[in-house]
Amino acid sequence: MLPGHHVSSWRYQGTKKEHLFNLKFLAAQAKLAEKGKFDMIFLADQLNINDPTSTGFEQTLNIMYEPFTLLGALAAVTEKIGLVGTASSTHNEPYNVARKFASLDQLSEGRSGWNVVTSGQLLESKNFSDEQPLAHRERYERAEEFVEVVTKLWDSWEEDAIVYDQSSGKAIDSSKVHSIHHKGEWFSVRGPLTVPASKQHRPIIIQAGSSESGKELAAKTAEVVFTAAQTIENAREFYRDLKGRLVKYGRQRDDLKIMPGVFIIIGRTEEEAKHKKQQLLDLVPEEAGLARLSEHLEFDLKGYPLDGPLPKLPSIEKVSGTQSRVELLKKVAEENNFTIRQLYQHIAGARGQRELVGTPEQIADDLQLWFKTEAADGFNILPSHFPDGFQDIVDLLIPELQRRGLFRREYEGDTLREHLGLKTPPNHFIRLSE
Amino acid sequence: MLPGHHVSSWRYQGTKKEHLFNLKFLAAQAKLAEKGKFDMIFLADQLNINDPTSTGFEQTLNIMYEPFTLLGALAAVTEKIGLVGTASSTHNEPYNVARKFASLDQLSEGRSGWNVVTSGQLLESKNFSDEQPLAHRERYERAEEFVEVVTKLWDSWEEDAIVYDQSSGKAIDSSKVHSIHHKGEWFSVRGPLTVPASKQHRPIIIQAGSSESGKELAAKTAEVVFTAAQTIENAREFYRDLKGRLVKYGRQRDDLKIMPGVFIIIGRTEEEAKHKKQQLLDLVPEEAGLARLSEHLEFDLKGYPLDGPLPKLPSIEKVSGTQSRVELLKKVAEENNFTIRQLYQHIAGARGQRELVGTPEQIADDLQLWFKTEAADGFNILPSHFPDGFQDIVDLLIPELQRRGLFRREYEGDTLREHLGLKTPPNHFIRLSE
Repeated sequence: MLPGHHVSSWRYQGTKKEHLFNLKFLAAQAKLAEKGKFDMIFLADQLNINDPTSTGFEQTLNIMYEPFTLLGALAAVTEKIGLVGTASSTHNEPYNVARKFASLDQLSEGRSGWNVVTSGQLLESKNFSDEQPLAHRERYERAEEFVEVVTKLWDSWEEDAIVYDQSSGKAIDSSKVHSIHHKGEWFSVRGPLTVPASKQHRPIIIQAGSSESGKELAAKTAEVVFTAAQTIENAREFYRDLKGRLVKYGRQRDDLKIMPGVFIIIGRTEEEAKHKKQQLLDLVPEEAGLARLSEHLEFDLKGYPLDGPLPKLPSIEKVSGTQSRVELLKKVAEENNFTIRQLYQHIAGARGQRELVGTPEQIADDLQLWFKTEAADGFNILPSHFPDGFQDIVDLLIPELQRRGLFRREYEGDTLREHLGLKTPPNHFIRLSE
Repeated sequence: MLPGHHVSSWRYQGTKKEHLFNLKFLAAQAKLAEKGKFDMIFLADQLNINDPTSTGFEQTLNIMYEPFTLLGALAAVTEKIGLVGTASSTHNEPYNVARKFASLDQLSEGRSGWNVVTSGQLLESKNFSDEQPLAHRERYERAEEFVEVVTKLWDSWEEDAIVYDQSSGKAIDSSKVHSIHHKGEWFSVRGPLTVPASKQHRPIIIQAGSSESGKELAAKTAEVVFTAAQTIENAREFYRDLKGRLVKYGRQRDDLKIMPGVFIIIGRTEEEAKHKKQQLLDLVPEEAGLARLSEHLEFDLKGYPLDGPLPKLPSIEKVSGTQSRVELLKKVAEENNFTIRQLYQHIAGARGQRELVGTPEQIADDLQLWFKTEAADGFNILPSHFPDGFQDIVDLLIPELQRRGLFRREYEGDTLREHLGLKTPPNHFIRLSE
């Protein structure tokens, strides 16, 4: 998140060292997001930083908040906005993950969401006593069972299980609290959870995998999907594909919302926006650019000429992490005939997401087209830098979308589930007993 | 924590269903603790609730916050008070635990602490794919290495590692960020952590084990120890014993603070205090009392006559959980010739901790004696019920301690380490490179 999505955002005017881990500053950003009537604040996560001896380490602000301590804090300073954290299904236990989100859901009165990731990075596995990451397929098998266990745990308390009858001394209706007795390939978990159901019944499940197994997992379990489509054709194809997979899991089209990522730089004129982008690019240290590109490709580019082409990369099946990201980057380089420098500049901000640089009207035109033609149900907005880049989005882009009737002027509900217009999935245990 | 430490606190006047998971209410309690100039707020934790079909399940408010979401929220609404959470060294990975506390430490500007527990309950292990808890000895071996890994990760960022030189483009001084390359019996962890060092350098480490392995672990690693001594003689013996063990780990007497637990009920007169206690006892449903006692003894007492003696219990080596607690309870029952009912009433509030029921002066006399005669460096205060029981402590007991010059009137420092008067332990990596 901070100081921004652009790799050189920390050098940009207005960003400050004092903002790092500063709760007052973070609270102000969260309140700004709420003023903008966003559905949710989303914290990405990764369970490692780069090797301190690697290229670009010194030029990159390579730190990462732990999502839950921050989301808990933001719950205390906001009223309506959803609070979404990332948690790995590979380097965690489902009981711990279920509890964290359920507890955040209680404290925020129904505003939490879980972005499920499978953590394929080598340096992540090395922080968890594994010499190698699990293979892609195993990660997804584990993730599927992990999500199943977590949702069962969330369902282990029916909504009216707490009786709290002070005079009779009955605190809980035990018929509405369920041991889950899960026994599977990866986990055996007895339950119940230690935390009762919240106002939105259960946290929202979010995913971003675009590989074949990622899409199947999403179709089966996700309520929101983040994706990184570059063109409207690709986005529509992904939309059609993923929505089409829902029916075989007994789900309806509206049970899953698709939100492509957009990295945004706004100017009051097109020139101003382009100038900001150029300023940010000019601030990218070569080492930092090369480091980020190497990380995204999972291939160390150190020593290759910056103004030459990409070298031949290992075949895609060898990629342990985000296969779809690597594939997309190779395609972009090929189609545009990019040098290494051009390619790292291309992802310096957007990290492989689509980039929109322009006036509020231009950006709104683009988002409107995607939204109206089944390329997107909404967007995962990535501000280039905080606070100013985000302030521009709230002050300039959101009002333009509101004027067009494309975006809410006020929150209509209280929970994240209501903001997203999602139904509560049926409870595992109520279904069983019917 | 809520609605109080007494098993029937939820039925007591002034406690309310609406307080559960209510962030405004919780924030008010935290602010009250800060008004009382407490060192820290401590959240206990356990990774299970009882079986919904077990005795007393319906009569016990058997729920548990996840500590980090709540501590994050409390960081946002307090300024000075320490924020201490419990995390298990058995059902977690050290990288995740190190990160959570480091992140809370950043967001709270140096106010976090970790209460290390080893989770010996059978129902806990069943939530984590284990049929049986690890044996006592293995839990402590794992805990020792776990703490070592966590502290190395906390040390992986030296304090001035973030340079943030916007003009030169140097964000980080890589010579001050260390991969830890830990390889041990239980864990292999590469590091560095994703979160830099905070204002107090590293979170405070707290423990409560009173078994032989517990005391050794504490002497080696803990900065605060919670204990459950019933008599001043036992407390002094524990104090002498534990402080005496420090030297072999190269530590000094003041590097570890000993804080016995005290469960407190205050009245403006002694009669009022006793009356409150009796009211609370009268509200204990038999099933709930029996359930808590069974849980503490790790032995199901269902079916035994409430007004008869304790049956013969399995020998202490068979206890997988908190051996010292079981031992203490058996001793109390024996010495007082308690029936099952008397024993569950005895622990209904104090949970095996010492109980103080009286006027502020009486309670202050007792605490003063312990504090002045090497039985305690401080106390872990357990209020019987929230909000009123805690309000009494802040409004009546704290001022009495302040009048006697035994307790601060204002915070003198900003960090938990400063409140406790603890030095920063030497950094693993700076030592290595000297």
